[in-house]
Amino acid sequence: MQHKSLSHTRCPIARSLERVGEWWSILIVRDAFAGISRFDDFQKSLGIAPNMLTRRLKTLVASGLLEKRPYSDKPTRYEYVLTQKGRDFRPVLWTLIAWGNKYFAPEGESIIIVDAASGKPADPMLIDRRTGRALQSPDFIVAAGPAATERTRRRYARSGQGERT
Amino acid sequence: MQHKSLSHTRCPIARSLERVGEWWSILIVRDAFAGISRFDDFQKSLGIAPNMLTRRLKTLVASGLLEKRPYSDKPTRYEYVLTQKGRDFRPVLWTLIAWGNKYFAPEGESIIIVDAASGKPADPMLIDRRTGRALQSPDFIVAAGPAATERTRRRYARSGQGERT
Repeated sequence: MQHKSLSHTRCPIARSLERVGEWWSILIVRDAFAGISRFDDFQKSLGIAPNMLTRRLKTLVASGLLEKRPYSDKPTRYEYVLTQKGRDFRPVLWTLIAWGNKYFAPEGESIIIVDAASGKPADPMLIDRRTGRALQSPDFIVAAGPAATERTRRRYARSGQGERT
Repeated sequence: MQHKSLSHTRCPIARSLERVGEWWSILIVRDAFAGISRFDDFQKSLGIAPNMLTRRLKTLVASGLLEKRPYSDKPTRYEYVLTQKGRDFRPVLWTLIAWGNKYFAPEGESIIIVDAASGKPADPMLIDRRTGRALQSPDFIVAAGPAATERTRRRYARSGQGERT
């Protein structure tokens, strides 16, 4: 399936999804966080077709989430490691883990976020760094930003912000 | 493109992506948070083909993120509103907004998360609800959970957890 490009939109969600908005890409990033860096290891972990893996890795490198670098000279072989931009994706993955564990883990949790020292499970929660307040509705809302188009401005002006049930 | 099903995996990320791991689905959820509920309004907002929109809405209803309910009798018309499961997806969207704004907003931010009362922009940050500590590497790591397969257990036992640079 050919995706329509989302690059014309200014929405940060749409633009982010254009870079990683596809199963494989996010699972590749997941594996990169787990320390996987080599083509064969990604392939083994994901069971993905090589041409598909090549394409997704290329996109992730082009988008600046992964860096491709040689780890062997003869023959030249490359590994793929997270850049700062890639590592900054961690909160998205971790909120996905929390949501997935809440709703799609009937047999128990397969992976969890834990305190590295104590091994105790963590319970992810979003706060506003500045005030320390819980970042949740209705205290916080999504609003049009300085670069919003007129259309985005209208939408968020009248929006119910998900308060409907 | 036909996706391989991810339902066999126990990974909460993979399972979550199976429900919403596609541009359109996440953008539909984004719009639902912005108060959009009717087919025509989703279509206008997304510029998506009707058959594609129908399919994605159906998937989101089947996955329990949206509820389909009548809002008019003659003719019967339906609207799509977020369920609790859908509303609980908010932290994923909000961390995506933060990441997208950080890296893909060269002309400024199109949408932002703000304090509803003061209008001041928020700075999303993940913490551990129990201890209040910042949920970040290397203090916190992803580890195999109680329902992990042997393979997942091995991977996370030896993993560098993204500490490589």
